[in-house]
Amino acid sequence: MIESPSAPQVSEPTARAGEWFSKFEAALQRNDAQAAAALFETDSYWRDLVAFTWNIATVEGREGVAKLVEANAARVRPSNFTVDGDATAADGVTEAWFTFETAVGRGRGLLRLKGDLAWTLLTTLDELKGYEERAGSLREMGAEHGVIKDRATWLDRRQREAAELGYTKQPYAVIIGGGQGGIGLGARLKRLGVPTIIVDKHERPGDAWRKRYKSLCLHDPVWYDHLPYIKFPDHWPVFSPKDKIGDWLESYVKVMELNYWSSTECKRASYDEAKKEWTVVVDRAGEEVTLHPKQLIFATGMSAIPNEPAYPGKETFAGIQHHSSKHPGGEEFRGKKAVVIGSNNSAHDICADLWEHGADVTMVQRSSTHIAKSDSLMELALGGLYSEEAVKNGVTTEKADLIFASLPYRIMHEFQIPVYAAIKERDADFYARLEKAGFMLDWGDDESGLFMKYLRRGSGYYIDVGASELIANGDVKLKSGVTVKEIKPHSVVLSDGTELEADLIVYATGYGSMNGWAAKLISQEVADKVGKCWGFGSGTTKDPGPFEGELRNMWKPTKQEALWFHGGNLHQSRHYSLYLALQIKARMEGIPTPVFGQGEVYHKS
Amino acid sequence: MIESPSAPQVSEPTARAGEWFSKFEAALQRNDAQAAAALFETDSYWRDLVAFTWNIATVEGREGVAKLVEANAARVRPSNFTVDGDATAADGVTEAWFTFETAVGRGRGLLRLKGDLAWTLLTTLDELKGYEERAGSLREMGAEHGVIKDRATWLDRRQREAAELGYTKQPYAVIIGGGQGGIGLGARLKRLGVPTIIVDKHERPGDAWRKRYKSLCLHDPVWYDHLPYIKFPDHWPVFSPKDKIGDWLESYVKVMELNYWSSTECKRASYDEAKKEWTVVVDRAGEEVTLHPKQLIFATGMSAIPNEPAYPGKETFAGIQHHSSKHPGGEEFRGKKAVVIGSNNSAHDICADLWEHGADVTMVQRSSTHIAKSDSLMELALGGLYSEEAVKNGVTTEKADLIFASLPYRIMHEFQIPVYAAIKERDADFYARLEKAGFMLDWGDDESGLFMKYLRRGSGYYIDVGASELIANGDVKLKSGVTVKEIKPHSVVLSDGTELEADLIVYATGYGSMNGWAAKLISQEVADKVGKCWGFGSGTTKDPGPFEGELRNMWKPTKQEALWFHGGNLHQSRHYSLYLALQIKARMEGIPTPVFGQGEVYHKS
Repeated sequence: MIESPSAPQVSEPTARAGEWFSKFEAALQRNDAQAAAALFETDSYWRDLVAFTWNIATVEGREGVAKLVEANAARVRPSNFTVDGDATAADGVTEAWFTFETAVGRGRGLLRLKGDLAWTLLTTLDELKGYEERAGSLREMGAEHGVIKDRATWLDRRQREAAELGYTKQPYAVIIGGGQGGIGLGARLKRLGVPTIIVDKHERPGDAWRKRYKSLCLHDPVWYDHLPYIKFPDHWPVFSPKDKIGDWLESYVKVMELNYWSSTECKRASYDEAKKEWTVVVDRAGEEVTLHPKQLIFATGMSAIPNEPAYPGKETFAGIQHHSSKHPGGEEFRGKKAVVIGSNNSAHDICADLWEHGADVTMVQRSSTHIAKSDSLMELALGGLYSEEAVKNGVTTEKADLIFASLPYRIMHEFQIPVYAAIKERDADFYARLEKAGFMLDWGDDESGLFMKYLRRGSGYYIDVGASELIANGDVKLKSGVTVKEIKPHSVVLSDGTELEADLIVYATGYGSMNGWAAKLISQEVADKVGKCWGFGSGTTKDPGPFEGELRNMWKPTKQEALWFHGGNLHQSRHYSLYLALQIKARMEGIPTPVFGQGEVYHKS
Repeated sequence: MIESPSAPQVSEPTARAGEWFSKFEAALQRNDAQAAAALFETDSYWRDLVAFTWNIATVEGREGVAKLVEANAARVRPSNFTVDGDATAADGVTEAWFTFETAVGRGRGLLRLKGDLAWTLLTTLDELKGYEERAGSLREMGAEHGVIKDRATWLDRRQREAAELGYTKQPYAVIIGGGQGGIGLGARLKRLGVPTIIVDKHERPGDAWRKRYKSLCLHDPVWYDHLPYIKFPDHWPVFSPKDKIGDWLESYVKVMELNYWSSTECKRASYDEAKKEWTVVVDRAGEEVTLHPKQLIFATGMSAIPNEPAYPGKETFAGIQHHSSKHPGGEEFRGKKAVVIGSNNSAHDICADLWEHGADVTMVQRSSTHIAKSDSLMELALGGLYSEEAVKNGVTTEKADLIFASLPYRIMHEFQIPVYAAIKERDADFYARLEKAGFMLDWGDDESGLFMKYLRRGSGYYIDVGASELIANGDVKLKSGVTVKEIKPHSVVLSDGTELEADLIVYATGYGSMNGWAAKLISQEVADKVGKCWGFGSGTTKDPGPFEGELRNMWKPTKQEALWFHGGNLHQSRHYSLYLALQIKARMEGIPTPVFGQGEVYHKS
């Protein structure tokens, strides 16, 4: 007779991780900061997403760990650390998923040991006890069984909520900006029972995508792009066309029952420190409505305040000129001469689109740009975490997000450098041809490539989906290593004296920091108080130090009470919206949320 | 050192199933019908969904198996039977999931062995080779990378398709009826690349739900109700309110990019046997459009042709009277006297709704009804396959559907009888109170309860979500064991002479067979040729024999070439739409589809 396999024993890596956690838990429960710290390597990192710190914070080394424990362990009362599944070991590093509890919530995380000591530890809050999302076995019944005189149906209740919220009932939170960021966060808050209004200037959810230039598709692949709770079906194209993602967002808003105010623009906002309440004045399709939320979130997108250089003579230009964010697409420019100033993503996309529509296009490259082919990125940079292969290997989106989050910013570039070295080798011919055409390439200050550029400065790269070929073969003309000297009625004059005839000028010159929105809608004072958003002080180009450990102001408390910034790409919006939503929910429920590790403001914009 | 667990060995049930399949496959490959048959029990069943028979067919016993093999094995060329995961054994029955291939497709199934012989075998076609759905690793890219002069974007292509289909390009299939059935089938056909138009008379997808009475919720729980491809998110209520499901369907149509013609009514259809083509005339929002599809599907719902008895004096009634399908809800009947004729689902729901709105309500029960409490059904009848618990146990919706499908209709009642015996015991007090109130109860002819009644006759029961309490306590008055003698201007006169005052009469008197649609839109001749839909000839009340083995005309070829019927509850629509879609796709691609086991037509309606 064939025997059934014996019950699985605990593997060596799992046992090792389990042992580490029992020591760690014991140290925390004794508030023994030194003992906890002694469980970490000299070079080590503990990244916490809201579970211990009510902040998004990374501490470094034993000293950092000790400080975190001292300040928080007694209140947090962590317990029940449990290795989840089998730990694995490779190259001297043991990796273990785990779950744990705190006094107020349940969390999960990822530990990496070198030998018996922690190298990286990620702890994240997953849910608040007593305030779990009503999903799975906690879901609502929907039908109220039994008979109820004059019952209100789902539709009655939904319509009443939509009619009352913002008028006779105040929302707890207002989100300014209803793109994917505001929508995903709104969905999280909905499931947590936080009354929320999302304010968006466009007519329909998804319009922020629909209104961009015609050929736009997401540059990140579908596995990276899911929203919370409802995944794209498995036939969804790898790179979503803009109108399709627009339709998806619109449907999502509907089925998630978000209170989404379309055609609504925020005019101004101010915070009453005494009442702990915002006054937010919005124009809702012509009607002025004043809202009084307790929390205000800017989900206006990292790329929402255009930078448009004030070149001399600009006002004399006789043709059409606009910032890339206003560019409608190439249809109306057939046979026209177009000058695109800039050489990052938008510049490339717009050059290609104009060329496809028969315009005569010149790109003006002012400084070097990092280029990576979309295919190469998919295969070498994202494939392990976000791909069909990853899904098959059991790396769910949720798991991939946590793995991504487990790499501290301080050392993240070390993981990226070899990826881009491989890309450089793989696509050597391509890069040679680009350089031959005069294109100025770079790979980031430390050769760490695209994703680090995105995190540090949110700019400086193009994910090549075809336009580089036009540059390489000269179909799109290139002027590189020059700046713009002046604009004349029918031309752009460059610093080397070249004069480019132009019917159209597109300023693909990037965006300012999100705290510009605070300046615009609240006050310059508040904008300066919270300081620059994004970047983490890597000391590289456009991301000046000192090192701050985390993205500035994103998804975490700012120096302005009750003011939050939400944004990033679809991956970040999806993942970090969880922690932002939990921070807001905790405040709504009166759970104490002392913030640990909030640093100074070093940069105003 | 702790050892890793050894590689799992093959368990005894898996080995037993594997052995059976190697013999079975060998017999099939030799076309040895007798050898294949000898692998089955005397009392045994082979149910095939399209994989072997291009039909939905069940054969019984060794003789049936032999016939199926003789007729099909040589053409089907089955191979590569592989046990999927671990087989299990309980109560002398070995159960094994498996996959296999045929000459044209890939399939999966479920085998149950008693000892070494097959008791039940389910074989299903999953996909056609070379025509796999473009999902997962086959999904489209979305963005066309590279540069393309005057490229058509996704939106351009989508708009062109919507504008052309039905006008300058003919759809391959037309689906009449855009409820959940038509929509789910439409989505399957979309993913298979079959150009399809769904025609629906309402203004918006989902209106068939929205327009029903206000308090309506799905009577089946959420785990049972998923559509193909996009699951409800995990906070979706257990019982979807009608407007919410309406909104979901509308969003689904949009994101699945179905060609859905709203406000469109089919006027007539006829088949040209020579051209093998339908002429389908529709009124699209006032414009007459003639379509020429190769396949025509009625997805009009099992409950779409109202039965309304012609009681004497009906035309003299001075109040409001309508069929249950036209009932708008109780709002306008506050303080009015309402008589509801009938005692099944709709009758109960409408009585409760009228009572909740303050009407004075009497139910007229003409014959006995089966009642089962929703909670009890969830726990005892569905829980193992469709519940949060089932999901946790790894019983995905897809798996649950196949388990359900694996029970042959001939013996299905045997599995149901003990379930309802348990319900009867559990809710004994409830039933006693109902009977005390005069309500006539039954449990089906053979005590097999609700689901068998649904399959056999599509009527005769109420899933209690509260109305029974109103009957039991007299809040809703009951006249049972009577029929209607006549209608007077202000009253309903019953067979026992009782006269019920009435401002409103609701005829909750059920629906006719779906082939009534063929009579209405094609011809009585075609309706008679295809015969009755639904029921399988169980020889029980309203489902006269002879036994036909499968639901009549549902999801499988009918006696009218290129005419199909699709419908059933959300579970059936979801699951069987796959097989119907594959049958249609095969015909579109010219794959030979000889139909095995098509029986006689015994009943015209």
